[in-house]
Amino acid sequence: MKFPAAQVAQMINGQTDGDASVTVSSFGKIEEAKEGQLTFFANPKYEEFLYSTKASVIIINEAYELKQPIHATLIRVPDAYTAFATLLSKYQEIAQQQLTGIQEPSYISPSASYGEHVFIGAFAYLGDQVKVGNNTKIFPNAYIGNNVTIGDNCIIHPGVKIYHDCKLGNNITIHAGTVIGSDGFGFAPQADGSFKKVPQIGNVVIEDYVEIGANATIDRATIGSTLIKKGAKLDNLIQIAHNVEVGYSTVIAAQAGVSGSTKIGNGVMIGGQAGIVGHIQLGDGAKVNAQSGVSKSIEPGKAVTGSPAYDYTSALRSQAVSRRLPELEKRVKELEALVKQLLEEKV
Amino acid sequence: MKFPAAQVAQMINGQTDGDASVTVSSFGKIEEAKEGQLTFFANPKYEEFLYSTKASVIIINEAYELKQPIHATLIRVPDAYTAFATLLSKYQEIAQQQLTGIQEPSYISPSASYGEHVFIGAFAYLGDQVKVGNNTKIFPNAYIGNNVTIGDNCIIHPGVKIYHDCKLGNNITIHAGTVIGSDGFGFAPQADGSFKKVPQIGNVVIEDYVEIGANATIDRATIGSTLIKKGAKLDNLIQIAHNVEVGYSTVIAAQAGVSGSTKIGNGVMIGGQAGIVGHIQLGDGAKVNAQSGVSKSIEPGKAVTGSPAYDYTSALRSQAVSRRLPELEKRVKELEALVKQLLEEKV
Amino acid sequence: MKFPAAQVAQMINGQTDGDASVTVSSFGKIEEAKEGQLTFFANPKYEEFLYSTKASVIIINEAYELKQPIHATLIRVPDAYTAFATLLSKYQEIAQQQLTGIQEPSYISPSASYGEHVFIGAFAYLGDQVKVGNNTKIFPNAYIGNNVTIGDNCIIHPGVKIYHDCKLGNNITIHAGTVIGSDGFGFAPQADGSFKKVPQIGNVVIEDYVEIGANATIDRATIGSTLIKKGAKLDNLIQIAHNVEVGYSTVIAAQAGVSGSTKIGNGVMIGGQAGIVGHIQLGDGAKVNAQSGVSKSIEPGKAVTGSPAYDYTSALRSQAVSRRLPELEKRVKELEALVKQLLEEKV
Repeated sequence: MKFPAAQVAQMINGQTDGDASVTVSSFGKIEEAKEGQLTFFANPKYEEFLYSTKASVIIINEAYELKQPIHATLIRVPDAYTAFATLLSKYQEIAQQQLTGIQEPSYISPSASYGEHVFIGAFAYLGDQVKVGNNTKIFPNAYIGNNVTIGDNCIIHPGVKIYHDCKLGNNITIHAGTVIGSDGFGFAPQADGSFKKVPQIGNVVIEDYVEIGANATIDRATIGSTLIKKGAKLDNLIQIAHNVEVGYSTVIAAQAGVSGSTKIGNGVMIGGQAGIVGHIQLGDGAKVNAQSGVSKSIEPGKAVTGSPAYDYTSALRSQAVSRRLPELEKRVKELEALVKQLLEEKV
Repeated sequence: MKFPAAQVAQMINGQTDGDASVTVSSFGKIEEAKEGQLTFFANPKYEEFLYSTKASVIIINEAYELKQPIHATLIRVPDAYTAFATLLSKYQEIAQQQLTGIQEPSYISPSASYGEHVFIGAFAYLGDQVKVGNNTKIFPNAYIGNNVTIGDNCIIHPGVKIYHDCKLGNNITIHAGTVIGSDGFGFAPQADGSFKKVPQIGNVVIEDYVEIGANATIDRATIGSTLIKKGAKLDNLIQIAHNVEVGYSTVIAAQAGVSGSTKIGNGVMIGGQAGIVGHIQLGDGAKVNAQSGVSKSIEPGKAVTGSPAYDYTSALRSQAVSRRLPELEKRVKELEALVKQLLEEKV
Repeated sequence: MKFPAAQVAQMINGQTDGDASVTVSSFGKIEEAKEGQLTFFANPKYEEFLYSTKASVIIINEAYELKQPIHATLIRVPDAYTAFATLLSKYQEIAQQQLTGIQEPSYISPSASYGEHVFIGAFAYLGDQVKVGNNTKIFPNAYIGNNVTIGDNCIIHPGVKIYHDCKLGNNITIHAGTVIGSDGFGFAPQADGSFKKVPQIGNVVIEDYVEIGANATIDRATIGSTLIKKGAKLDNLIQIAHNVEVGYSTVIAAQAGVSGSTKIGNGVMIGGQAGIVGHIQLGDGAKVNAQSGVSKSIEPGKAVTGSPAYDYTSALRSQAVSRRLPELEKRVKELEALVKQLLEEKV
């Protein structure tokens, strides 16, 4: 199928700038797109490709001012990245055949129930009292433990494991291999140096519109619930310990870890491989840089970096000086020699 | 079911302090417990809630001295956390229905054998010559490779993968998605820049009472065994490389990694996201702070932090100064100006 | 089976040094090998064991000069590690029974196809239009999504999940639990603070002779392909984000992570737990030390360390001084006192 630029513009409420009759039939990245492809420009790091790309149509922010003439047709929108996401969604809806039905063999407990238009893949397991809503897809080899509830329009990718008693809302996506509801890491040290298991009798509650990446782990609470609030987005290989709370629309990048009972506010951004100790609070809108080690609570809106982490701007300044440390040490040594000389001459 | 405080105290050999006839029917966290709930107080960080909680009964260390009057009934024990763990265990034993039997479809090789009262879930796989002891539970979608031995009273959670020839003792718990016995990362560099695979013909041996979290990876030895000794506790997403040894009752927190052939002693504590290089020794009782990067052997009982890691106390002092680096650099600059002035005036 | 040293030497084109008639029947590590075992010596860290080992035969580099007399028979080769790998491979070929056939129950879509001598384990899933080459092994509980292509001589270990449309070449090994083709972490921030999913319509392409460890995650591209080039070796629990490229024979150690759209050259070495930000380039032969945080592109052949990472040698120097910071601060304080005294005396 070919779409003229004018029609694409209409789909995303944009304005064409250039030949509106040019057609596109597929998507390409700006640095490698070919003629007949549609791309977008949002990240300034890729500005050089804006002027060299062979793409026929480029979605671009309306605020962007061209620095050179350009051969492609532009479609100007308030937010190019969001508009491109919208287009991809429409494309995916058309391309994806509707996946429904129950593949065999699967294991569905007689006491499990599910809504309309669901997909349950081969080797998927639905334990006792499991409830699955409408239009939800449970892919092959997924395990849904006893008494788990999953709402409508969810996608549970292959090999996801959800332990007993966990509760998932609507419009949730969990990627392959992720484990929800494994035991929290709770052991009471004993006098002889061994550890006694503390049973973990709580669960995990995941609210609507949450997306969790692949091979992540979200432990169940010791008592009560580990809670991932509405709209939070968690990347691959993330560790969320028992009794943690993650706020609304908070974003956590890959391989980050949050220790037990820590409460993360709304709209927080946590970089990849960052670590957060247990029993602290991260205020709304806090920002944690990648690889930071957060050992103290963070006030709302504050940014931190480093391990141990502290105020972002101060830490950057200290990091800059730390690269000049050998030189600084030398300057101190020279000063010591000069001062010694001054002191000796005085005598 | 309702239990009077006096009866709870009896179950954990505690002394009631307050109204021993008050009853509880469920558990709550100290900061959110309601009337009729039982909680515990062990971590000083939660002291404020001790005086505001609505819990009816609180398990508390006998050594703790109240700083204010309190409305709940206390049960005093030597170690509140352990006593609470004991209570949860008793609760879990009562609540859990005994899970036994073989679900269909599962795959059990004709040469595999298993003891009494086992549970083997749907889509679980037991390869040739596999031996499973009494009372062991193998959850759905778990894979037990050829010639693996698993002892009594083990719990192998959903989707665990155990490669051929690995040996597990008794009373072991492995959480969902964890991989035991994958190939160690061994490649011999070749003259043309490529790498030649070094076959990994060893195995993994896991001793009694070990617990391993979700989505962890324990590689098999090149030759010999990767060894996790009795009572060790490993959290989620941990990497244990080939030929590593982990000592008795050693505790490793989430996302930490240990490189090949390193030997970790007994009672060692390794924080989350810490990394340990290969071919070193960590002495008994060593402590590695979270996110540390350990590049040298550690003496028994020593604590380290930082990346690269060194002595804990020294490292903390250096970290404190490093935050004042911009100021220190400024002080050196001022000194240089003053000394220059002194030198010039001398002339 | 017993093999005389002379025969072993012949298999790896080595020269015996000592009694060539001594026989060995199994492998051992140099530090724990027993009589009748064969071992190798390559890592200088183990030199002490070279003179105390009970192994009967030791494969050793021809360039190595003995510092003491030795009781074992030596087999001298240009590269002991590679020769040992060769021997283990020959041993594994003999020991391994050829694994072929289709175990039941498995799920193979009517539109899927596969070559000769394949193994497809129980509970493995082959979706629509899947193509599998000759001699490839798909272990139990593996999931191969619609339209995936896998070449010849591949090993897909238990519980691997490969999403739709991904392409794998020949002679590839993917260890248990690894996820290939999960959605990239792409969300467009909205005015109300929420995030809008950016559909990920690309795929993952893996070239010949790649090996990927256990529980790793390789995200599909937003558009185009995430690309792992020929001969690259990736360890356990690694995160590769959308649209990343990994070059020929590049090696990435466990728990490292690479953010979106970063291009990694050929022959690059990335240490464990290192993190690389998105949208940068790592030149051919670059070296990234363990736990480093790389925030800027790296020139070919350069080595970096630290978080944030910079030139290896400079960073080591700064790290050395940073350990002396408390002392340096003290020296500055003493200088200040002395200079103050000089200034006062001048007046």
